[in-house]
Amino acid sequence: MTRNRTGASRMNDADATLAELKKRVREFRDRRQWERFHTPKNLSMAIAVEAAELMEQFQWLAPDEAWELREDEGRLEMIGEELADIIIYALSFANSLEIDVTTAVLDKLAKNAEKYPERDYRGRSSWLESKEGGEH
Amino acid sequence: MTRNRTGASRMNDADATLAELKKRVREFRDRRQWERFHTPKNLSMAIAVEAAELMEQFQWLAPDEAWELREDEGRLEMIGEELADIIIYALSFANSLEIDVTTAVLDKLAKNAEKYPERDYRGRSSWLESKEGGEH
Amino acid sequence: MTRNRTGASRMNDADATLAELKKRVREFRDRRQWERFHTPKNLSMAIAVEAAELMEQFQWLAPDEAWELREDEGRLEMIGEELADIIIYALSFANSLEIDVTTAVLDKLAKNAEKYPERDYRGRSSWLESKEGGEH
Amino acid sequence: MTRNRTGASRMNDADATLAELKKRVREFRDRRQWERFHTPKNLSMAIAVEAAELMEQFQWLAPDEAWELREDEGRLEMIGEELADIIIYALSFANSLEIDVTTAVLDKLAKNAEKYPERDYRGRSSWLESKEGGEH
Repeated sequence: MTRNRTGASRMNDADATLAELKKRVREFRDRRQWERFHTPKNLSMAIAVEAAELMEQFQWLAPDEAWELREDEGRLEMIGEELADIIIYALSFANSLEIDVTTAVLDKLAKNAEKYPERDYRGRSSWLESKEGGEH
Repeated sequence: MTRNRTGASRMNDADATLAELKKRVREFRDRRQWERFHTPKNLSMAIAVEAAELMEQFQWLAPDEAWELREDEGRLEMIGEELADIIIYALSFANSLEIDVTTAVLDKLAKNAEKYPERDYRGRSSWLESKEGGEH
Repeated sequence: MTRNRTGASRMNDADATLAELKKRVREFRDRRQWERFHTPKNLSMAIAVEAAELMEQFQWLAPDEAWELREDEGRLEMIGEELADIIIYALSFANSLEIDVTTAVLDKLAKNAEKYPERDYRGRSSWLESKEGGEH
Repeated sequence: MTRNRTGASRMNDADATLAELKKRVREFRDRRQWERFHTPKNLSMAIAVEAAELMEQFQWLAPDEAWELREDEGRLEMIGEELADIIIYALSFANSLEIDVTTAVLDKLAKNAEKYPERDYRGRSSWLESKEGGEH
């Protein structure tokens, strides 16, 4: 936990659990009675819309320029907000279907680890390999 | 923490911190030396691609049908995997630009709370209101 | 062809060929020397970004409300602009890889006609059927 | 018009009008009675889903590699199909709201021409400039 300017303690990634963030997102929705808008279908659209807004930040950049963003405070703040929007809707989606995000992520990483063994994919893009593999 | 079939303890949303999940995602990437593919630009595309795959599950459904999914184990599992993909790439993106997800989310919720006061937006979609507001 | 307010003749869907629209899009790009930004990769991102902006117009609407838009001149104009952005980048993408759009569309319609025979799919969503089909 | 292998004449971009392609797309839908699925909201999602599938082809590629695709017949065919899907749903969307695509495209190009004068934007990305412009 860290203290912000006003001396109040703030959670950060080191101590916030997924359940804690999901709770904050649920409270925000419930206080505005937005359940009827936050259907799984609408939330899947919302995640995609926010993902596009994040992508828009990188759309015309050469790969090298994308790294330079790290020095640009204003842009980094905008990028952080777009990422937050994605996470917020993703957690709201998880709330709506009662999905345990941690379990889903660890299961998927385990599945991917089998699909892309380290010895075969070290330094090689999963995509090209899997497509080639699929054609042979 | 819960125990899975083999008796091993597994983290879930109640005890996994964001930092812990970010670490797992980073290790997966590093073991395959995928840093050069995982640029912020490419990761923003990957999040958007996975968001579309989640959306595809709801694309032609009527809103009511979307809720029925909760009874469909097979579909729920697919949906959980798509959500996991989004979260995994979002955390990898956060790793790449050293963004604290918790801070970004809490800051954005605070900003949204000011933008959409409870008394004005209770039961009313943020979108319609904000668009109407913009036109007056 | 129709005449607009100033008496100039304007093309519309009845007489504009795909080649004509592709030419207009190419000229716009060339006059600004934007070839180096308009790579296939960047254009695929641009199409996705504009598609999300169109989707944003419908994100929180109930299905019935989406039809009511037809009475709302201002919204229809915004929607027309978002659709135009998608088409413009899609044609620019076709230009960049020298794809004949008409051939691609007619080939895909022929392929889909085989995949979704009228007698089997009349009134039934392609998606649900194909997923169910895939599981049997 | 060109002749294909079987000697039948096929339309291509040089002679197909937008109205002709819109008619083909409408017929495909009507023969399957898919009007109730093809709401503007669902079609906006479908365009976004197909846009993501096109993007997936370029997701992990370096910019140079994206150009090499032009030599790869198999990949080009997949890319052409993804582009066709986007166009098909975009035309179906235009049908559903009775939008004249040609008018929308020409109007948007005219608007963009005012927004990005050639003398100011030659060789410079619209995005960076417009963002910088917005900050000053």
